[in-house]
Amino acid sequence: MSSLINDTLVKTLFKQKTAYTPCWVMRQAGRYLPEYRETRKKAGSFLDLCKNKDFATEVTMQPLERYPNLDAAILFSDILTIPDAMGLGLYFEDGEGPKFKHPLQDESTIQKLDIPNVEEKLDYVFGAVRSIKKALNNQVPLIGFSGSPWTLATYMVEGQGGTDFLKIKKLVYSRPDLINHILKINTETVTKYLASQIDAGADVIMIFDSWGGTLAHSEYEIYSLNFMKVIISNLNLLGYQDVPKIIFTKGGGHSLQAQSDSGTDAIGLDWQTSLSYARKMTNDKVVLQGNLDPSILLSTPKVIETAAKKVLDDYGKGEGHIFNLGHGITQFTPPENLDALLETVRNYSSKYHQD
Amino acid sequence: MSSLINDTLVKTLFKQKTAYTPCWVMRQAGRYLPEYRETRKKAGSFLDLCKNKDFATEVTMQPLERYPNLDAAILFSDILTIPDAMGLGLYFEDGEGPKFKHPLQDESTIQKLDIPNVEEKLDYVFGAVRSIKKALNNQVPLIGFSGSPWTLATYMVEGQGGTDFLKIKKLVYSRPDLINHILKINTETVTKYLASQIDAGADVIMIFDSWGGTLAHSEYEIYSLNFMKVIISNLNLLGYQDVPKIIFTKGGGHSLQAQSDSGTDAIGLDWQTSLSYARKMTNDKVVLQGNLDPSILLSTPKVIETAAKKVLDDYGKGEGHIFNLGHGITQFTPPENLDALLETVRNYSSKYHQD
Repeated sequence: MSSLINDTLVKTLFKQKTAYTPCWVMRQAGRYLPEYRETRKKAGSFLDLCKNKDFATEVTMQPLERYPNLDAAILFSDILTIPDAMGLGLYFEDGEGPKFKHPLQDESTIQKLDIPNVEEKLDYVFGAVRSIKKALNNQVPLIGFSGSPWTLATYMVEGQGGTDFLKIKKLVYSRPDLINHILKINTETVTKYLASQIDAGADVIMIFDSWGGTLAHSEYEIYSLNFMKVIISNLNLLGYQDVPKIIFTKGGGHSLQAQSDSGTDAIGLDWQTSLSYARKMTNDKVVLQGNLDPSILLSTPKVIETAAKKVLDDYGKGEGHIFNLGHGITQFTPPENLDALLETVRNYSSKYHQD
Repeated sequence: MSSLINDTLVKTLFKQKTAYTPCWVMRQAGRYLPEYRETRKKAGSFLDLCKNKDFATEVTMQPLERYPNLDAAILFSDILTIPDAMGLGLYFEDGEGPKFKHPLQDESTIQKLDIPNVEEKLDYVFGAVRSIKKALNNQVPLIGFSGSPWTLATYMVEGQGGTDFLKIKKLVYSRPDLINHILKINTETVTKYLASQIDAGADVIMIFDSWGGTLAHSEYEIYSLNFMKVIISNLNLLGYQDVPKIIFTKGGGHSLQAQSDSGTDAIGLDWQTSLSYARKMTNDKVVLQGNLDPSILLSTPKVIETAAKKVLDDYGKGEGHIFNLGHGITQFTPPENLDALLETVRNYSSKYHQD
């Protein structure tokens, strides 16, 4: 860890003293950047971009080159690489979310689902990690990531994102045996996937549980959190206990205490949950990451400054806060507005790290 | 009130002793019922159905005829009648959500927005209320309703529903003066609208804040709850203090205490918030309505029975719980499954109402 030039994020994840609150932004390598759009044009489709390590490295590095106040890089990839490696056929149609050609729509298909050969099928991801790690030259830590078993399962069963999730919910309530089969396979695959990302150079790992919040409060632990817990404890058993782990359930503000007991080092928060409330609910046991409403970045530097300060004030004094948005940055963000955010966080937060 | 044959719902709203937990279901008059689909065919479009008092009465009565264990009727209408009356041109395309022909997309259009002539433009709604009230013959109470000022504003600015709400969020953060102008006009219009529904015979009113949960926790009170509060206190000033009021913010579990201090008699809960937690947070100050995950109704009577009991157990003993789903019933629900739910609630809940 000591080899990192800027180790603020990693130090915060270990609750060590830092000079300021570290900051990175979900989807920081993305469409709001003109340089990203250029690379994307060269690469072809979004998946072509993910699968080519040189292009993936190029876009991962772009926000770091533009914004001196970013404290981490995050692997450029998609959360759905795993179901794609399982043969479900991930594809994107212009202007729409991800879809699968072969979703899990009947019992026999579900029963046949198996753990893919992660090393071989997802080699392009580990290649990208190695290449990015080299390009970073220890400047800042690299965050590797995966979708959570539940979130992957929703896409695998529904065949796409959505709002109702009736297919998978019907399965949850009618055939919990089948849903557990999918979740167990996903859990084992995600564990291998994250372990290999760490082997390839990821300094921190994050599990995105984008759809955990669609479950009823009483089902969230059973079908989502418990499987993230297994991944964390298995990674620890495999010897990765010193690699900090972040879990992020969008809409998971109802179960903060349970999340803080999962073995994770940090919890991501969306903008519906207050940091001070979360701090109280988790009794400062874990680091909190978040949680500015991304749409604020569509306003003006002055409004952004005020809003960023409010988030920092909401967390208050102490080590244990990573500043981020409550969700990915939108493609309509004027790039200079992110500068205003990062500068405010860097400068204003120092007062919360003094003795 | 004493004229109602089944006054269980109204008694619960006044926290009076009842023999069992009353139950109704959001969107109980809807596409899952074959008889609804028949009437819809006769009526033409969804809006034609809303605007014809005979058809609106017919579909409002259908679930009551089918299910003897329903404790309330709810006016068949749409939450977007108000912006339609303001001239924004509500329309529906097959298989898609509501849209507006003339959304509020620039400052001058917003500045020109004015309170419509509610009595004239929304006369069809009050006609439906009178007609339904007559058909009900005091069997159960009739719930009137409106969208909340914020929820109406999201549709008025975005021109449709959605997931990001970037247009209105941009306005919130860049031009709060304009958003407040819209919200004030909506608030005054909703107040008149609900007052007239009560005059026409509504026994209870409910405000649906479907999109309040999209606001950051720090903005929810400012842009949504406070305007619902004004409606409630204005209705009370107008002499409607004895008409029970329910507010329902989907995704509003972060602000239960503030909601319970709004003057409302009851709070609706989605399935992400536990009833026992909400009871604690609101200190039993208000009645709680909810909150079974609607997708459970896609499973089997046995699973539904267990899940309904779990919800009743979660609230526990005492007057102050109205059983409902956490959101509208889905069109894919087998009608007999709702029977299983209603029977379980009626029979199992009595144990929580004994001395």
